[in-house]
Amino acid sequence: MTDQSPLRTGGRAARRAARAAPLAQHLRPVRPGMSGGTYNPLSQADVERIHHAALQALEEIGLADAPPSGVAYLTGAGAIQGSDGRIRFPRALVEDTLAKANRSVTLCARDPRHDLDLSGSRVHYGTAGAAVHMVDVEGRNYRECGVQDLHDAARICDVLDNIHFVQRPMVCRDIPDNFEMDLNTIYAVCSGTTKHVGTSFTDPAYVSKAFEMLHMMAGGEDKWRERPFVSNSNCFVVPPMKFATESCMVMEAVIKGGMPVLLLSAGMAGATAPSTVAGAIVQAVAECLAGLVYVHAVKPGHPAIFGTWPFGLDLRSGAMTGGSGEQALLTAGCAQMHRFYDLPGGAAAGIADSKLPDMQAGWEQMCSNVMAGLSGLNMVYEAAGMHASLLGFCHESLILGDDLIGQALRCVRGIEVNDETLALDQMRQVCIGGPGHYLGTEATLSRMEVDHVYPRLGDRTSPKEWAEKDKPDLIAKAVARKQEILGQRAAARFDPNTDQKLRQAFNIHLPA
Amino acid sequence: MTDQSPLRTGGRAARRAARAAPLAQHLRPVRPGMSGGTYNPLSQADVERIHHAALQALEEIGLADAPPSGVAYLTGAGAIQGSDGRIRFPRALVEDTLAKANRSVTLCARDPRHDLDLSGSRVHYGTAGAAVHMVDVEGRNYRECGVQDLHDAARICDVLDNIHFVQRPMVCRDIPDNFEMDLNTIYAVCSGTTKHVGTSFTDPAYVSKAFEMLHMMAGGEDKWRERPFVSNSNCFVVPPMKFATESCMVMEAVIKGGMPVLLLSAGMAGATAPSTVAGAIVQAVAECLAGLVYVHAVKPGHPAIFGTWPFGLDLRSGAMTGGSGEQALLTAGCAQMHRFYDLPGGAAAGIADSKLPDMQAGWEQMCSNVMAGLSGLNMVYEAAGMHASLLGFCHESLILGDDLIGQALRCVRGIEVNDETLALDQMRQVCIGGPGHYLGTEATLSRMEVDHVYPRLGDRTSPKEWAEKDKPDLIAKAVARKQEILGQRAAARFDPNTDQKLRQAFNIHLPA
Repeated sequence: MTDQSPLRTGGRAARRAARAAPLAQHLRPVRPGMSGGTYNPLSQADVERIHHAALQALEEIGLADAPPSGVAYLTGAGAIQGSDGRIRFPRALVEDTLAKANRSVTLCARDPRHDLDLSGSRVHYGTAGAAVHMVDVEGRNYRECGVQDLHDAARICDVLDNIHFVQRPMVCRDIPDNFEMDLNTIYAVCSGTTKHVGTSFTDPAYVSKAFEMLHMMAGGEDKWRERPFVSNSNCFVVPPMKFATESCMVMEAVIKGGMPVLLLSAGMAGATAPSTVAGAIVQAVAECLAGLVYVHAVKPGHPAIFGTWPFGLDLRSGAMTGGSGEQALLTAGCAQMHRFYDLPGGAAAGIADSKLPDMQAGWEQMCSNVMAGLSGLNMVYEAAGMHASLLGFCHESLILGDDLIGQALRCVRGIEVNDETLALDQMRQVCIGGPGHYLGTEATLSRMEVDHVYPRLGDRTSPKEWAEKDKPDLIAKAVARKQEILGQRAAARFDPNTDQKLRQAFNIHLPA
Repeated sequence: MTDQSPLRTGGRAARRAARAAPLAQHLRPVRPGMSGGTYNPLSQADVERIHHAALQALEEIGLADAPPSGVAYLTGAGAIQGSDGRIRFPRALVEDTLAKANRSVTLCARDPRHDLDLSGSRVHYGTAGAAVHMVDVEGRNYRECGVQDLHDAARICDVLDNIHFVQRPMVCRDIPDNFEMDLNTIYAVCSGTTKHVGTSFTDPAYVSKAFEMLHMMAGGEDKWRERPFVSNSNCFVVPPMKFATESCMVMEAVIKGGMPVLLLSAGMAGATAPSTVAGAIVQAVAECLAGLVYVHAVKPGHPAIFGTWPFGLDLRSGAMTGGSGEQALLTAGCAQMHRFYDLPGGAAAGIADSKLPDMQAGWEQMCSNVMAGLSGLNMVYEAAGMHASLLGFCHESLILGDDLIGQALRCVRGIEVNDETLALDQMRQVCIGGPGHYLGTEATLSRMEVDHVYPRLGDRTSPKEWAEKDKPDLIAKAVARKQEILGQRAAARFDPNTDQKLRQAFNIHLPA
């Protein structure tokens, strides 16, 4: 029995109950699409120099190897094919395209609650890549990855709050036929998550069958076109400054089918792009501007993501390094160019060079992820699970990435400054005749859930508590969480009727 | 036999030889004191609101518990003691102090090559703290730390390029007498490193003996005063808004002895400071402004570091969290206030909540370290080795922190934009009739050492190479490196004559 008023006790109990329930989306401390942009690696003058260098590259160097259809589209729009076969882009053509281009793109998800609004400096994190290995953390081993691994990755992403989209992060190495691989990739990811999905196609000839599958999943072509929940990650260039002929034909086909396009320029700084950060950004911007002109020549206003993805290189070995500071700068610099153009953009961050989810992986993944978010990158691709400079994907690392990205998002959210947060009145009350501390004040308690991100697997115990809990191992906790997630029924599965139709129409490798 | 010209071959051999030698300091890709400031978590209007709220807090709330000597100094300078005993600061007094304060401070090192120039947004990383445990990574254990551990930490810091100063990171728990602990702390750190050292004093009565020791180390009081190589980390406030009476008396004593002062306000957001990021910054700024007035009242122009160190709190448990996104924002916001005032400043970053150097530790340490650097923080304290929210220090983590901070510094260095880095000419040469790639071009090779930071222990091998190398473990590599460093003769040791004198005058616990 206490002498507290029933009202006060009731209020406290109600608050406690409210705290135990999951927070409503709008009250959560971090959400998809928070606005970044407080970090500007480039000055305004530097941004403009990069822009003008890219325009000059397009005008004077141009791009080789467009397919005949692309040559027709591009020259029809005002580009000029030289006697060397290269397509060159007059400055005015590029500037006109920039003026007309979409300032925002909505990437739909099967579940509309997961739709992504790509505009301004709104930040979203998700997977991507083409890893060929699964990282087996318990065996410290790399093995070939397959369709079940991909499906499991999608299922894990589906329940992680801070993974906002699922571009396929790995290749189904157990499906040797490319056509079957491309279609099973879509099925494996879409049946694992209701978030937006990204995928790629090996051959333009496969696209029409993929649309058949997507129409079936959507419940008809009209429904698909209304809310296309899969985008095409399209490597339309082979840097430096050459169109990827086949991929361009894929691009034309997906545009006609109503699928948003990620215009992906993946130069390697020092190999297929200049070794300098600024030079690699210039080339990536030039290539994506060419892609943007191309998209608009095929279909004005088609949703496209400006995908400047320059990668870092370890110049001693000539091998890629995605975990470096140079990589973080490449990506953040690109994000600033996207904001300059006010175009929906994406780039790669969160890649670890480390083979395992160890301390190195943690610092590598955070460095580029937090810098990408602070620079206001709309789509942070490769943000979780990626190891060995994109060669390996790791489910446990993906799960830990949810904590890591939650923290990065807290940084993106930034510092709110208003009369309440400045807290001068509170300071006065606490210091002058008050308790002399802020613990348990209403102002502190009322914000403890909405202001603070608490890690799910990250450990904050004291050394004493930690020892009492038998010194829990981070990786073991991630393994347990993986088993818990995969032990549940997949919420994203298609209804049995649709699934049966899909399995009748296509050779689905995943067991029903 | 090749048909290459001898000139060309000779040039290549010369380049190769040059690459094998360590780079001259001015050519290194990262250095102490690179300028940050590209990240601005606060708008200009927000910065000014924080400034005005701090002035209001000083004018209306003021600080309690100044020692009598401090009351005399402060009221002599124009502050007003109220009937409640609190010292309040008229706005004009604070503004006058800000106008007169040093815009830069040089922190000297026993080896002048390690001097630190604290000005503008120049960034330096180093250790700090008062950990009470050593983290034994091989035994996964926390044990009490002692003077040998502290000395070893200093020796390790001495050889790590990216640790720029050594504030004592842990307490000598094996020296129960506080006087002996304080003096042995100075000896243990200074005999381990020639970099700038920071330390603290438990009692004002110990300061004069410490100066005797420092004069002996310097070779006389005049030499010490000319180049004071130790600064005093001084917790002059007990937040919220109370002077720490004893520490203020320490401060007065060290000022008279010519020792630079770190004015350290270490509020805990949600306990001893408001829970909001903005509110905790307001209070820390107000407290440090009070400290600045105090320093200038004792001795105008004395070198002081504006040490706003608000810490994050996990409001669920009431325990500190230094590894959170909130912590990274607290520190970066403070750095922006330092730049607003154009005062040499410091704050805490790089703290891990994790008990061990695992993936969590990696992401926690990088998050706040890179954001501190990008925000242009002059002194990033606690930047390496700190675990369990400051309770544990880890030698292996310190060693790995050198790689981590090297990467953060690369990000601080940022993106150079000029005709050479924009690389338009190179792009033209490569694409039009050139090799179609940038590998091995002169432009690429000439910059491979000066542009790129290569990790020392971080692993960038392919999965195949990694397996061939027997899957090296990051922590095992750090353990081996520690043994290698500690197996060498300590370069920072005093000459035998000085050391003998020190050992005669003081009860030195470290074996000779």
